[in-house]
Amino acid sequence: MVERIPVAVMGATGLVGQRFIQLLHRHPWFELVSITASERRIGQKYGETVRWMWSEEPPEEVQEMKLSPTNYEGVRDAEIVFSALPSSVARELEPELAKRGKIIVSNASPFRMDDDVPLINPEINPDHLKLIPIQREKRNWKGFIAKNPNCTTAILTLSLKPLLDNFGISNVRVATMQAVSGAGYEGVVSMDIIDNIIPFIKEEEEKVHRETKKILGTLTSNRVEPLNIGVSASCHRVPVLEGHLEAVFVELKEKPEDVNGVVKALSNFKGKPQELKLPTAPEKPIVVRSEPDRPQPRFDRMTGGGMSVVVGRIRWSEIDQNEIKYMVLGSNTIRGAAGTAVLIAELLRAENMI
Amino acid sequence: MVERIPVAVMGATGLVGQRFIQLLHRHPWFELVSITASERRIGQKYGETVRWMWSEEPPEEVQEMKLSPTNYEGVRDAEIVFSALPSSVARELEPELAKRGKIIVSNASPFRMDDDVPLINPEINPDHLKLIPIQREKRNWKGFIAKNPNCTTAILTLSLKPLLDNFGISNVRVATMQAVSGAGYEGVVSMDIIDNIIPFIKEEEEKVHRETKKILGTLTSNRVEPLNIGVSASCHRVPVLEGHLEAVFVELKEKPEDVNGVVKALSNFKGKPQELKLPTAPEKPIVVRSEPDRPQPRFDRMTGGGMSVVVGRIRWSEIDQNEIKYMVLGSNTIRGAAGTAVLIAELLRAENMI
Amino acid sequence: MVERIPVAVMGATGLVGQRFIQLLHRHPWFELVSITASERRIGQKYGETVRWMWSEEPPEEVQEMKLSPTNYEGVRDAEIVFSALPSSVARELEPELAKRGKIIVSNASPFRMDDDVPLINPEINPDHLKLIPIQREKRNWKGFIAKNPNCTTAILTLSLKPLLDNFGISNVRVATMQAVSGAGYEGVVSMDIIDNIIPFIKEEEEKVHRETKKILGTLTSNRVEPLNIGVSASCHRVPVLEGHLEAVFVELKEKPEDVNGVVKALSNFKGKPQELKLPTAPEKPIVVRSEPDRPQPRFDRMTGGGMSVVVGRIRWSEIDQNEIKYMVLGSNTIRGAAGTAVLIAELLRAENMI
Amino acid sequence: MVERIPVAVMGATGLVGQRFIQLLHRHPWFELVSITASERRIGQKYGETVRWMWSEEPPEEVQEMKLSPTNYEGVRDAEIVFSALPSSVARELEPELAKRGKIIVSNASPFRMDDDVPLINPEINPDHLKLIPIQREKRNWKGFIAKNPNCTTAILTLSLKPLLDNFGISNVRVATMQAVSGAGYEGVVSMDIIDNIIPFIKEEEEKVHRETKKILGTLTSNRVEPLNIGVSASCHRVPVLEGHLEAVFVELKEKPEDVNGVVKALSNFKGKPQELKLPTAPEKPIVVRSEPDRPQPRFDRMTGGGMSVVVGRIRWSEIDQNEIKYMVLGSNTIRGAAGTAVLIAELLRAENMI
Repeated sequence: MVERIPVAVMGATGLVGQRFIQLLHRHPWFELVSITASERRIGQKYGETVRWMWSEEPPEEVQEMKLSPTNYEGVRDAEIVFSALPSSVARELEPELAKRGKIIVSNASPFRMDDDVPLINPEINPDHLKLIPIQREKRNWKGFIAKNPNCTTAILTLSLKPLLDNFGISNVRVATMQAVSGAGYEGVVSMDIIDNIIPFIKEEEEKVHRETKKILGTLTSNRVEPLNIGVSASCHRVPVLEGHLEAVFVELKEKPEDVNGVVKALSNFKGKPQELKLPTAPEKPIVVRSEPDRPQPRFDRMTGGGMSVVVGRIRWSEIDQNEIKYMVLGSNTIRGAAGTAVLIAELLRAENMI
Repeated sequence: MVERIPVAVMGATGLVGQRFIQLLHRHPWFELVSITASERRIGQKYGETVRWMWSEEPPEEVQEMKLSPTNYEGVRDAEIVFSALPSSVARELEPELAKRGKIIVSNASPFRMDDDVPLINPEINPDHLKLIPIQREKRNWKGFIAKNPNCTTAILTLSLKPLLDNFGISNVRVATMQAVSGAGYEGVVSMDIIDNIIPFIKEEEEKVHRETKKILGTLTSNRVEPLNIGVSASCHRVPVLEGHLEAVFVELKEKPEDVNGVVKALSNFKGKPQELKLPTAPEKPIVVRSEPDRPQPRFDRMTGGGMSVVVGRIRWSEIDQNEIKYMVLGSNTIRGAAGTAVLIAELLRAENMI
Repeated sequence: MVERIPVAVMGATGLVGQRFIQLLHRHPWFELVSITASERRIGQKYGETVRWMWSEEPPEEVQEMKLSPTNYEGVRDAEIVFSALPSSVARELEPELAKRGKIIVSNASPFRMDDDVPLINPEINPDHLKLIPIQREKRNWKGFIAKNPNCTTAILTLSLKPLLDNFGISNVRVATMQAVSGAGYEGVVSMDIIDNIIPFIKEEEEKVHRETKKILGTLTSNRVEPLNIGVSASCHRVPVLEGHLEAVFVELKEKPEDVNGVVKALSNFKGKPQELKLPTAPEKPIVVRSEPDRPQPRFDRMTGGGMSVVVGRIRWSEIDQNEIKYMVLGSNTIRGAAGTAVLIAELLRAENMI
Repeated sequence: MVERIPVAVMGATGLVGQRFIQLLHRHPWFELVSITASERRIGQKYGETVRWMWSEEPPEEVQEMKLSPTNYEGVRDAEIVFSALPSSVARELEPELAKRGKIIVSNASPFRMDDDVPLINPEINPDHLKLIPIQREKRNWKGFIAKNPNCTTAILTLSLKPLLDNFGISNVRVATMQAVSGAGYEGVVSMDIIDNIIPFIKEEEEKVHRETKKILGTLTSNRVEPLNIGVSASCHRVPVLEGHLEAVFVELKEKPEDVNGVVKALSNFKGKPQELKLPTAPEKPIVVRSEPDRPQPRFDRMTGGGMSVVVGRIRWSEIDQNEIKYMVLGSNTIRGAAGTAVLIAELLRAENMI
């Protein structure tokens, strides 16, 4: 076996940080050498301070690891640094680390829309990683920053890609039912969500609009030309622990012969991660279910280890000849966050970009 | 005070039946003389057999009433019969009762789309009641049947009507988050809905499509010409007790000058029930809230005694110049069922049609 | 009508503060002249800053009131000051205000166990208010402090009092299922409680143990001699919005002839608030339900306007001849907090102690 | 490898039936040859008719199996028949099958209290299996019936056994918070349990009282002499999917030196299944957690594959010197049902009783 690459997780005690731990602790290519947290936890053992939220216990060897500070010192020994930091911290720290040579693969929202920052959903736009040399040169950085998309967008775009490729897309409308874990451990208080829905998630709709177009866009010489489609999202928080469910209406450019044609396009979809057999790549990025009442968050969110999205209820929209509608579901903390970040890092490695 | 009209409720122990009881037990125009239930409850006192689901106790005088059989004998003394029957029972019984002279105002879905049956949301299409003489003549009935819409449709159409009047509508897409009470007391088992969403409600989307067009349609000599718009619904069940929340995308024919124009059109909307000051009519059929995160089911479902719908988050859709999106919420058991039925009966009375 | 007494609510925007607002805004004896909040809200209108959690909207006149600082200046015009402050703030501020002449009726836990501080559940121990002159003299205060019990204890003790009076009590064991509102608006995050129970509430069991004995204790010359019984509580948080449900096992000193004797003792119980017909006193402090599956939080928590406790399932415990078990439920924010505080103030007024 | 014993599951589509499938489909000693269901499902493929409720999909090979009728023909090829039947069906069918030679290991409640029927929690009373020859002789049966306890009792008794052995027990009081899955798939409707608790489970408390005493009782020549202790349960249904949590108060005969002595007694407990290294036996039947707020259903129910119970919050009860209290949690569908049944069958095999 080859030498594993030393990696760090910043923000390791949060919900997404915990997912990074699960995905990295026995990773065949990466070795977790450092985990960071905020001030008050530094020096504590991970297992003693983390409020673990997922079903199995945290891996024993990680429980014993001590938390490092969230700064350069804290990740000094890592080559790749996965970031699950809050936006305000990420905005300051990520560029500093990239400048000093770290490869940042980040779930935080800042810089996602920067022209020279690749925003990657690995099955869709692996070629956008070509922005990296441009970024490094322009910013005079030894390292670089790559971003995974917002959770809702990661799940949505995976379902859109084969439609775009096969039929063309003119407009997308999506109404989401998002899990409370998407807001972080303390993000949604119980008094707000028991027997209730909150039909608003700050800045979420804007993220879906612009990130979808960038991810599905075309790489030009030094930036990504966003895809010229209409995207309109309505985002809502529901009393579900994990798994974002989205009701999608898509106006296609070309009418599929029948719904089965759409099913096939989605079912057969594969991307570079499957081709390269990357460790975290699900066998099928999109699993289509034929039952009338699926996907459902509790039953389908862990499909493909949380890396597949599950599509169901594909049907004509009745608005016009070319419009279909369907449901898509994905794990917001894995495919929508940590899992996609790890997959990006694997892609970078497989493509010899690190 | 004038003599009150004797009325009956068929299916009085179910969730919608219970709402009828609440709305009718001290009604200024109607006197509840009979309540019916299925076989096993006949002869029992209402208070001893009902599994009451709403916050205050059932009215004391109704608790003492005995349940009658669900047939002609059971409602013999009533002039108006409110029906909260299951479809299969309604399909047989309602025509029989109408034939024998009863005025049926029904929440059950059969006959809603019949050409000569008025499907009424009283603020929107009171004129469709003119189908009644046609129905009676055609069917040679002494009584008649009038229907309130499906719950989701009742709430949706109320919000669409002022948009149609002010700006014209070409297409409507709606994704719903529907309360478990919409399926009846036993409709959704807890194992299916805790920490979950069920993205399917049988026949619901079809009902929304066709009923919306009929309610917003135009009365011709002997039928309603459905409104020529596209309607596409995606319907989902969420872990909420009461209140259907809907995310609506509307393509308008004319672009409103600004979002505020839409707010005004909705806020100022009134219909005949308000004009006639019907007892169950809410002062404002549509309440527009300006907070970024409303309407929410738990807080807004009882607005206007459950008879108002609450609209919020009115904004441009970003798809094209003429499209807006918003949330609308309503009580599925009151505005979406019993309340609208009672309002129809009041309208019939005020218009001297009974 | 007599002049109303000017009152203030400190901590008016929290869940208990909101209940105080509901109970006081049209109170026949008290006039709400001041409401206070923490730093960042001072000067804002109540309606614009409060995150209101109860079903009806906050009263319009209170919505327009501006929030004052939580200090002497902020309540200068009030004679009675109701406190819904966090412990740490209450510990400093309440004595200062009492010293400067304010009558403090407080839901905060500090000082509840002080020898000269009356801890009152008005139907049980109104005579303990006689500690007030002792408190004033000892502390050389112009005003004084009276306390309502911890929520769980307020509900429990109400059900114990008639048992104590009629049969004597040797030991009480209680296992609670407490609503999330008991922890305050932000007290329980949704990630912790959906599909879950938290079997621990900090310091709660200790409060139940010692407060129960004090409330049921005997006033001596200058303090309360705690009742000499065993009390053991096990406290748990459940996914319910409001209403604490408690499973109680009571070893009685004397065996009731039959269970019906216990039912009668509880049903017939009345206290001084009922005798004096205090405005907030429920007609029946204890409502006994005979159904096999009641009380239930969602259906019974607002019994008697939230001021009655509801007892059900009274039965022999099978441990020994003298032991019974039953369920008791009460509104944790009304009977368990603000309602009892208001009732204490009414009692003070009716007894001419203010 | 030795020949595997052919086994059947009756009632295979229910929640407990599904757990049997999970536990048996790759069992080293047993081979699943037949699965039965009620009339309407006979002949259908398991995967096409089951409403699967657990996180992973049903095993592929079982999905393809066809459902047999619930009668002798349906289980003809099996030597051991696991029963997850409803009581009414079990009462008729189980004796018939036992008579005709089948070994019935059953989760159904009938016959549990029969003198000659072993009611087994394998770590506690494996010796009670000696009732089998007595049963066979007395009833003149070729096969026999063995029972696992009611879910609540299975979990409770496991925690009581080491206390009984080490300190003696005089009385046990227990208040339960039971998951909705305990009532079966359709057992609890969502309208009853969202934002609510149901403080009643039919016949549950009686089962806990009598089964606890039998399981902890002493085998005499031809029956089990129940343990002479007091047991009093108060049983409640909470909005949790899986995992029964119980608050237990135990009066011990001998005072432990300190709480740590109790912790040790529980932690170190092992039974015959551990000794024999039975395939389904958890390494530790009782896992003691030291955090102040554990066990919690969502996080702890799958401990030891759902076969361990988790104990926490062990503390003095404050009632008297010898009383302790603690929380115990277990999977109601595994340790409380199917898992214990499978463990019984393994014990029978290991002891050469089949």
